[in-house]
Amino acid sequence: MTNQLVGIAASDGIAIGKAYLLTEPDLSFDKVSITDPEGEIKRLLDSFEKSKNEIQGIREHVAKAVGEDEAQVFDAHLMVLSDPELFDGIKNDITENMINAEAALSTVAKMYINMFESMEDNPYMQERAADIKDVTERVMGHLLGVKIPSPATINEEVVIVAKDLTPSDTAQLNRDYVKGFVTDIGGRTSHSAIMARSLEIPAVVGTKEVTQVIAEGDMVIIDGLEGDIIIRPNEETIAVYQEKAAAFKEQQLEWAKLKDSKSLSKDGKQIEIAANIGTPKDLTGVIENGAEGIGLYRTEFLYMDSEDFPTEDEQYEAYKAVLEGVNGQAVVVRTMDIGGDKELPYLQLPEEMNPFLGYRAVRISLAETEMFRTQLRALLRASVHGKLRIMFPMIATVNEFRDAKAILDEEKAKLEAEGTEVSNEIQVGIMIEIPAAAVLAHQFAKEVDFFSIGTNDLIQYTMAADRMNERVSYLYQPYNPAILTLLKHVIDSAHAEGKWVGMCGEMAGDQTAVPLLLGLGLDEFSMSASSVLKTRSLVAKLDSKEMEKLANKAINECATVEEVIALVEEMQELIK
Amino acid sequence: MTNQLVGIAASDGIAIGKAYLLTEPDLSFDKVSITDPEGEIKRLLDSFEKSKNEIQGIREHVAKAVGEDEAQVFDAHLMVLSDPELFDGIKNDITENMINAEAALSTVAKMYINMFESMEDNPYMQERAADIKDVTERVMGHLLGVKIPSPATINEEVVIVAKDLTPSDTAQLNRDYVKGFVTDIGGRTSHSAIMARSLEIPAVVGTKEVTQVIAEGDMVIIDGLEGDIIIRPNEETIAVYQEKAAAFKEQQLEWAKLKDSKSLSKDGKQIEIAANIGTPKDLTGVIENGAEGIGLYRTEFLYMDSEDFPTEDEQYEAYKAVLEGVNGQAVVVRTMDIGGDKELPYLQLPEEMNPFLGYRAVRISLAETEMFRTQLRALLRASVHGKLRIMFPMIATVNEFRDAKAILDEEKAKLEAEGTEVSNEIQVGIMIEIPAAAVLAHQFAKEVDFFSIGTNDLIQYTMAADRMNERVSYLYQPYNPAILTLLKHVIDSAHAEGKWVGMCGEMAGDQTAVPLLLGLGLDEFSMSASSVLKTRSLVAKLDSKEMEKLANKAINECATVEEVIALVEEMQELIK
Repeated sequence: MTNQLVGIAASDGIAIGKAYLLTEPDLSFDKVSITDPEGEIKRLLDSFEKSKNEIQGIREHVAKAVGEDEAQVFDAHLMVLSDPELFDGIKNDITENMINAEAALSTVAKMYINMFESMEDNPYMQERAADIKDVTERVMGHLLGVKIPSPATINEEVVIVAKDLTPSDTAQLNRDYVKGFVTDIGGRTSHSAIMARSLEIPAVVGTKEVTQVIAEGDMVIIDGLEGDIIIRPNEETIAVYQEKAAAFKEQQLEWAKLKDSKSLSKDGKQIEIAANIGTPKDLTGVIENGAEGIGLYRTEFLYMDSEDFPTEDEQYEAYKAVLEGVNGQAVVVRTMDIGGDKELPYLQLPEEMNPFLGYRAVRISLAETEMFRTQLRALLRASVHGKLRIMFPMIATVNEFRDAKAILDEEKAKLEAEGTEVSNEIQVGIMIEIPAAAVLAHQFAKEVDFFSIGTNDLIQYTMAADRMNERVSYLYQPYNPAILTLLKHVIDSAHAEGKWVGMCGEMAGDQTAVPLLLGLGLDEFSMSASSVLKTRSLVAKLDSKEMEKLANKAINECATVEEVIALVEEMQELIK
Repeated sequence: MTNQLVGIAASDGIAIGKAYLLTEPDLSFDKVSITDPEGEIKRLLDSFEKSKNEIQGIREHVAKAVGEDEAQVFDAHLMVLSDPELFDGIKNDITENMINAEAALSTVAKMYINMFESMEDNPYMQERAADIKDVTERVMGHLLGVKIPSPATINEEVVIVAKDLTPSDTAQLNRDYVKGFVTDIGGRTSHSAIMARSLEIPAVVGTKEVTQVIAEGDMVIIDGLEGDIIIRPNEETIAVYQEKAAAFKEQQLEWAKLKDSKSLSKDGKQIEIAANIGTPKDLTGVIENGAEGIGLYRTEFLYMDSEDFPTEDEQYEAYKAVLEGVNGQAVVVRTMDIGGDKELPYLQLPEEMNPFLGYRAVRISLAETEMFRTQLRALLRASVHGKLRIMFPMIATVNEFRDAKAILDEEKAKLEAEGTEVSNEIQVGIMIEIPAAAVLAHQFAKEVDFFSIGTNDLIQYTMAADRMNERVSYLYQPYNPAILTLLKHVIDSAHAEGKWVGMCGEMAGDQTAVPLLLGLGLDEFSMSASSVLKTRSLVAKLDSKEMEKLANKAINECATVEEVIALVEEMQELIK
């Protein structure tokens, strides 16, 4: 029998493979009295040894695949396992109380974890508690014969099945073996979805129950084009999807021919299709996919991947690498966008009732200017190595832009006074992601060099709905006529002042949105590198004048998102 | 020496009086060995007796001033004090361990509190834990000779000094004695500020440090007109403020003459000035202040003041009382606005990362329709007793309005089929408090009977800033040109379809905003009853045509809120 699940198509492509469950293992056990303490101690020792070997293997893999820094956490795990106090403590509990190894391990581990966790003022000790928890769970797994998933140890082709993937999970994934993934939760803009597109592996998210219905080793098909999951398919079904996978591969080859082409609509209107990146490492994908520059460089990863604030020089090197890595194309760098759901271990942020409506991004930069000035100096110094555009995130008022710009100008003047060369061609713009900024775009347009529309936030604020909150995610409606109306005002306002407008939210690479955005006159579309060629191909089929009519019709006549979608689908049928 | 603090003027008027500190008492103690257990037991017994008498007094006061239901919590407290197990437990701890009563009380109380609190699935037992905590703190206060503030026992004229006032604090306040209050935290739209205006006592909030600089019994002047706090004033200063208080009283008498007048601008344009209420009890203030009907009846208090969902009949009685209590004027009833920061003890809502962007108001009503249908039936039945207008809160999309309206129509048809009479003149409208609804007002205007603009939420979503969050409260800018632009679009859209527009947020009674709102063509201003006459007096001084020019100038020419405020102030100087 074939089982099918439907989720949200998060990353294009078809994956067919065996399921690898990346889920919380069941480590429950019974406490029992024993008569053979030596036997229990032997079991314990075996489990310790197996765990050591396993962790050693993971450590080596991570060092090679990710980096030596990231691997060092496993050294701490190995140290815990080699600590005689831990082993002897469990051993004594077995012999003194004549209980099984599982019960003794659990008691002693809890004692250490509680002890370290109670040292609330000492982050180092708190981390040790986490290490002990990790390690003793692994030992428990071996005692119980239960697999503790470690994505880093995967050494055959699989598709990952998980509730959700954390950044640390994705960092450990071996791209040679992981063919795709499917999750219970998340949406197109969740972390795991963005990672899948960046890794260019098929993914379906938000299936709600995939971890409940798939067992380890089950055959699974992930259709990242449609959002379908086929569980334990028969041979016939596999054949159908193999054909679909081949067709998609062929289409990708077709798209690849557009790699060095300009992005032109059917009637010859030129736009720019750029890519979003998080680190200089992402440049490979940008070049491979023929993106016309970087429309969004998310600098917060520089901060999030670091133990402390990155220095001016560290930042300078990263910015320089990106500017030099794009063959003279423009790079739009967004200044630090921390806060909301993004935290830094070394920056104490206030607990907030509504972090998305709180102290974040440029609000932090303008209040804690030391950090901001360091970043701006690094950017200004790097500016001579390419075509730099700086943009400020979460701008709500004209005064915030003026304040941020004034600080930038101050640092530029200081650098020049010190004799450091700074480019005089840096464009300075803002993200349009707060409704107030969109409504007042005609005022902002007089003062900025460009806009970049951040649709993820703009939509959630305009609809007053947290896109991460499943209960209200139905209100995350990119094609809602209210959103389109704001976009039109932003684009028209910029053009009236001779400025350009980009978009760096998920919507820019959305195949239903692209016709509307072309019609609204958007100048630059920035997206996951993997979507660039597909979008260039789509644009080539669209007549910009016709799309203008389509967009205006959507804005002037539609009251609901369903009406807008129907309009676009009708048009898409016609051009097929 | 005169000390002065500046806060946010939250409720008009001048109060002069002795400070009553409503702050957390310091109940720290030393555990000491004792030699006279009988003496300690005597001290303990005394403290129990004093606490009993005190609670009995509070209970009687609350029963009289607030209601028998609210007083019953104190019966539970008295039961705790009369429980021999508690007393004997402490007594035994004193004699067995030869320790002081404070140490024994603390140990035994903690034991009971932990025991009850650990029964996580039993809300009854959890409440008992809270009762024991309350009561044993009071006993500890008597042992230590430390005052436990109980606002209900105040029996001389005072001004309250507090970090913040909770709803339960304000419920216990005796209006005969409490002349004003001042708090560390909060803004014009915080609960305590709204309560102060509803009680019509002067208040200043958000002073940050008033509880640190005022001592119990200090003489304090609260200037709720300017937001100033004068601490330990000299006689001269007191005289100055007595004069100011007298002048304000005189002004109030002047305003009172407008009680039965229409609300007319200088050039004769008529508007409506209505009041916001939470319960039928608030009608007294509405009538006394000459409000032209109810612009917002917040029905969630019916739910929040209840142990379980209010029945259809209970709701019917409340709605009928309000409809009959306003002499045939219109009453705009907002359907249940729960969620966000408003919780119901008997309705399990999900934990949310950003509750203001979450599952609340009509989103809950449309998902859990049973509760919604009960409320609508009660409203429909009450509709024959007056002029009823129903409005749905937190509408983001046209479909949400259509869905809510369809449910209303269904219930109306059912009632009529059952032979129950329902008015055919009920107007059905929506709150405009989500940016998407404001932007799409021209579509909504075709389908609704009216709009009521909820500025508190509209501003916080449009600016993407939680108004309760002090770090970003500077972004809560009612006069920001972006907000004014949205308001103009909402009002113009409604008028184009022949519909009326009200406003029921704080902004409607704000003296800087009123000129702009009159200029934008707002039809109905709904506010705290205490602001009605002042606003009617202000409107009488304003020329509506001039204000239209002012509003258009603000929208067309201003880029920042500072420029808008300067414009309005310039105009205000001219008409002085």
